[in-house]
Amino acid sequence: MSIYQATASAPVNIAVIKYWGKRDTKLILPTNSSLSVTLDQDHLRSTTTSRADPSFERDQLWLNGKEDEIKPGGRLATCIAEMKRLRKETVEDKNPEEPKISDYKVHIASYNNFPTAAGLASSASGFAALVASLAYLYALPSSPSVLSAIARQGSGSACRSLFGGFVAWDMGSQPNGADSLARQVAPQSHWPEMHALICVVSDAKKGTSSTSGMQRTVETSALLQHRITHVVPERMESISNAILQKDFDTFARITMKDSNQFHAVALDTEPPIFYMNDVSRAIIALVVEYNRLSLEKGQGCKAAYTYDAGPNAVIYALKENVKEIMQLVVSYFPQKPEEFKDVLGLFGEGSLDLNAQAKVPVGFNEAVAQRFEIGAVKGLIHTRVGDGPRKLSDDEGLLAANGLPKTLV
Amino acid sequence: MSIYQATASAPVNIAVIKYWGKRDTKLILPTNSSLSVTLDQDHLRSTTTSRADPSFERDQLWLNGKEDEIKPGGRLATCIAEMKRLRKETVEDKNPEEPKISDYKVHIASYNNFPTAAGLASSASGFAALVASLAYLYALPSSPSVLSAIARQGSGSACRSLFGGFVAWDMGSQPNGADSLARQVAPQSHWPEMHALICVVSDAKKGTSSTSGMQRTVETSALLQHRITHVVPERMESISNAILQKDFDTFARITMKDSNQFHAVALDTEPPIFYMNDVSRAIIALVVEYNRLSLEKGQGCKAAYTYDAGPNAVIYALKENVKEIMQLVVSYFPQKPEEFKDVLGLFGEGSLDLNAQAKVPVGFNEAVAQRFEIGAVKGLIHTRVGDGPRKLSDDEGLLAANGLPKTLV
Repeated sequence: MSIYQATASAPVNIAVIKYWGKRDTKLILPTNSSLSVTLDQDHLRSTTTSRADPSFERDQLWLNGKEDEIKPGGRLATCIAEMKRLRKETVEDKNPEEPKISDYKVHIASYNNFPTAAGLASSASGFAALVASLAYLYALPSSPSVLSAIARQGSGSACRSLFGGFVAWDMGSQPNGADSLARQVAPQSHWPEMHALICVVSDAKKGTSSTSGMQRTVETSALLQHRITHVVPERMESISNAILQKDFDTFARITMKDSNQFHAVALDTEPPIFYMNDVSRAIIALVVEYNRLSLEKGQGCKAAYTYDAGPNAVIYALKENVKEIMQLVVSYFPQKPEEFKDVLGLFGEGSLDLNAQAKVPVGFNEAVAQRFEIGAVKGLIHTRVGDGPRKLSDDEGLLAANGLPKTLV
Repeated sequence: MSIYQATASAPVNIAVIKYWGKRDTKLILPTNSSLSVTLDQDHLRSTTTSRADPSFERDQLWLNGKEDEIKPGGRLATCIAEMKRLRKETVEDKNPEEPKISDYKVHIASYNNFPTAAGLASSASGFAALVASLAYLYALPSSPSVLSAIARQGSGSACRSLFGGFVAWDMGSQPNGADSLARQVAPQSHWPEMHALICVVSDAKKGTSSTSGMQRTVETSALLQHRITHVVPERMESISNAILQKDFDTFARITMKDSNQFHAVALDTEPPIFYMNDVSRAIIALVVEYNRLSLEKGQGCKAAYTYDAGPNAVIYALKENVKEIMQLVVSYFPQKPEEFKDVLGLFGEGSLDLNAQAKVPVGFNEAVAQRFEIGAVKGLIHTRVGDGPRKLSDDEGLLAANGLPKTLV
């Protein structure tokens, strides 16, 4: 008897043109298009194993070893049902010899290799890995764009994690969402020098969830409509061109402007939503001053901050500048040596001073921010642009022979 | 020989519809109308004595006992020249018997009764007191609106301090600024129950000056134009009606929305401008939760926060609710008893617990903010709506017989 199982991993993505607001909350259709960089899943990833088996009594899903309820009509249920429908319509109905596994219940085990406490949105990589593993399990002929429309119904930004590189999510116009799809603007190989430094920021207070926050903005912000209609379309085009031309300066300017505008419309919400805190503000001040210096030298912006629905900063920079930027960040936000991992091997031993007293570039105005205590930035993750979902071998599967997560066995 | 001298005091005002952006930086013509509440000068005021004397060799001005240079073509010079012109045109040219004191040089001494360190904008009360004292000195027949056009050229928001009560500054449309004037919406006596609690917030970092900040917003914010054209006009009308109807709930909602939107367009500026910090955010969270409770009881909003170009909160509330709000603020931001002044005599001895462990209303969700250390809010000033500029007696004059500030003699 065959075992129907597949395992996939999928990456995190961090938007540079922000998604904030749904025009259809059930289908998850956005009020504006968005664009993101897919990050390297060698560093940050969700891994998911899906198995279909006639002996299973119900669809079940475990996240990091803990069962997550699949609520009827909920987002998980929708994605699984849509994938089964695709299996039936595009494989089984067309080729009667294919096994009718779309009727079987599925067991799904998923695992994120980054701690939830890091404050990184895991729903994007999670739903992308879910959809990718089911697509492999069901041997679907579907394109990543078709799959993106299903991942989108799990978590909007998940659709962008179906592609590597630089990815647009076109808002579309059809009421059924058929044209609200992700699309690759450029592959990872086009601009592999694009690196990212994630600054994990501590926050005393839990922020507003993005799901409820964005709808409050849609309902109450007087500025959001202007952003949607008059600002985002032009930015989508400009930043796509900047990516195609590998024009980092333009990429950086638009990225920072759009992060600021997203937080501006959040603040224009009733009651106001704040995601950035004083540490986030200080990181912005460092990047602004760092860019001021390089602009003065005619080199254009060398770093671009962006903030999602939380206080963490993601700083995009070209590989050649990451070391300098990391040293700058560490000078204001000292790190414990034992917790710092030089993942990409950029730093030879001792080449990064993890507890420097403001070791900043020549001409840098040190007064733009105060120096914080250890722990204000509780972690630094250095990564880069990466590829799309990967099919993994059965050796890497997360389900044991009995159909339960290996971690539970 | 006559002594030509007059002394006036003028109040601070705190806007509820914010002024942010000039369409003419020399004449100080704003990009949108604004509206403020004049605060009681019994508590916060600028006092100014002006003297004209043929023996004076040049126009001179002392602020808090220290000479301030009157730069040719600068804002001080403009205001003084305009006042001399008014004296000549409306008094001396029409009545040849009036002494030609518009030819004399003036000495001006000004004093703010609140410390600069409090972070309260002193330019509004300062320029209003300057203009008022010169108007008394010159015995001008001019209305406060005419004088407001001159104070406006010293500091935009100063024009609103020429009136007591609730004051609009109509942006006007004429290129020469002749119709960009302040106007009283309602006098102090219309709604004397309007109180204000100023929370003086410490900040590690000096923020962007409002003069340079607002022009950066005009030049770079994609959202500002929408605010100017589509949001402010309707809010000016609605909040004026709310004031006339003494509808605190509507007044509060618009006040908070407009404060948030002002900070949103500041954040949408390139590079972004932040005035609020984590303490400011926490005060917002307290007010939002406090209002949630009163809305639940069908009582409408009972408090309205507003923030100018700095981290200080001003909380507007009706007199009957101030005590409860003050207790709430003090529960999260403990005060040193020796520094707390019960200016309005609202609190009997021991009725306010200055170091309470979250002494909050029943049903209040204490988790909306953390409790801060002493010093995070370094002072509380309780005041209320007040009247416009006052003429003071010569006994209260700030210049000695020799024409120098008394503090210097």
